[in-house]
Amino acid sequence: MEIIDGKAISKEIKEELKIAVQERKVKGKKIPHLAAVLVGADSASMTYVQNKVKACEEIGFESTLIHYDDSVAEDVLLAKVEALNTDRSIDGFIVQLPLPKHIDELKVTQAIDPLKDIDGFHPRNLGNMVVHLPGFLPATPAGILELIRRKNIVTEGKNCVIIGRSNIVGMPLSIMLGRNANPGNCTVTLAHSKTNNLSAIVRQADILIAAVGQPGFVTADMVKEGAVVIDVGTTRIEDPKTAKGWRLAGDVDFEKVAPKCTMITPVPGGVGPMTIASLMMNTLKAMELKGK
Amino acid sequence: MEIIDGKAISKEIKEELKIAVQERKVKGKKIPHLAAVLVGADSASMTYVQNKVKACEEIGFESTLIHYDDSVAEDVLLAKVEALNTDRSIDGFIVQLPLPKHIDELKVTQAIDPLKDIDGFHPRNLGNMVVHLPGFLPATPAGILELIRRKNIVTEGKNCVIIGRSNIVGMPLSIMLGRNANPGNCTVTLAHSKTNNLSAIVRQADILIAAVGQPGFVTADMVKEGAVVIDVGTTRIEDPKTAKGWRLAGDVDFEKVAPKCTMITPVPGGVGPMTIASLMMNTLKAMELKGK
Repeated sequence: MEIIDGKAISKEIKEELKIAVQERKVKGKKIPHLAAVLVGADSASMTYVQNKVKACEEIGFESTLIHYDDSVAEDVLLAKVEALNTDRSIDGFIVQLPLPKHIDELKVTQAIDPLKDIDGFHPRNLGNMVVHLPGFLPATPAGILELIRRKNIVTEGKNCVIIGRSNIVGMPLSIMLGRNANPGNCTVTLAHSKTNNLSAIVRQADILIAAVGQPGFVTADMVKEGAVVIDVGTTRIEDPKTAKGWRLAGDVDFEKVAPKCTMITPVPGGVGPMTIASLMMNTLKAMELKGK
Repeated sequence: MEIIDGKAISKEIKEELKIAVQERKVKGKKIPHLAAVLVGADSASMTYVQNKVKACEEIGFESTLIHYDDSVAEDVLLAKVEALNTDRSIDGFIVQLPLPKHIDELKVTQAIDPLKDIDGFHPRNLGNMVVHLPGFLPATPAGILELIRRKNIVTEGKNCVIIGRSNIVGMPLSIMLGRNANPGNCTVTLAHSKTNNLSAIVRQADILIAAVGQPGFVTADMVKEGAVVIDVGTTRIEDPKTAKGWRLAGDVDFEKVAPKCTMITPVPGGVGPMTIASLMMNTLKAMELKGK
């Protein structure tokens, strides 16, 4: 059994990007510039955005953080999106989700220029993914694919079960892993809250991806001996023993599931760092797509 | 066991659309106008396009058929697409696929205004489908959903196996049947040419959809007792006993599979007529989306 070190792989990718930035500098080319828009003061969202800005600094990307109060009006946010769309110094940007309830997330997502949509949430990019056209793949699923690629995990012909059908993880990942590509060519089953006999279905998985957001959801009896398990869950749960008073918990009962696996990702240090690495790769790609 | 009469359901839909056209006339509203672009003289494509034009006539839609020779240049075809995009009298149009090899199908598909893309092949419409935004659903999958709806087939919580992952049938259908909607909420497995142990996987299907294009591909031993089977295959096979010298064959070994099913669609007369009905529904929807 091998615990997949997402942090190490993410570091490796960041090192590669750092070199790419240095090469761009030498050639007098533009340095990638990422902007992140944060609304409100949700602690998890703030951490995510800070980690993205930090990753930019490590790699040598330029970054801009735009922070609005919780009460920002939808049209103010949309005007900022439009400004970022037309700002030629910005190569790609994200609007950190979730947004406060008075703001229509889909409206904001659709307002982003698909060519700067490094989160890969715009319907145009999702559609491009379906028909295999160039575009941005959603950051978390793309990070998982990169992890599979770098660990040389064979996907072709494997039964893959994904639990959770969100627009940003489960659903796009099911498309990406089922496509005629490498990684890809899995026989994918997308399970969700309405699935019957979930355990029996999950037990058939050679590759199991849990993206439910419920700590300990996947128990040992649900996992086939020798499976590869990828845990996308990152739920903060109270833990008075830690300095912060909380810790991150995955969807998988790691202690009991790990011994049955060929490979498994931990939480934290598995998929999380890969999402950021993937976002950074998309930022560089944003420049390449524009031929910059 | 019930044989689903797609022809009858399609007729029912066309009658409803006929009434909708008459109501529009009474209100002085515009009559829907569909255009179809056909390239070359492939016999199957010609039949499909003719059937679409015929359906327009039955319903009372206006229709325009544009027919190019096999040798038409890509830029001529793209110019025609652009002309149709801007022609305000045309509400929706299709370019019949497949196109000759010297023309890039994806380029043509992407050139169509998503708001006139009644085939639902444009990446923007596919992306809208993924995130549940309004738009055109691809005609064949949408026709299958309409058939499921009108036959009151329960989909929630059912295991659905789709064989074949094409951009225009299997892949979008897997998304549509897995979404949180009705029909929908199936646990979908998308099987394809790289799937291992296909028979064992298919045997788990409560709802089986065959979209492979290989006559007789699904045999009785692959089908669970009591399953609902939907056959999307329409392959022309030689048959000297018929006047035309050929007949349409589905992917399912109908004679032997049918006795095991709760419901099954025949070929011809199952999914085929539903695709056309669905295209007609999309044409009316094209006007509604624009508020005409």
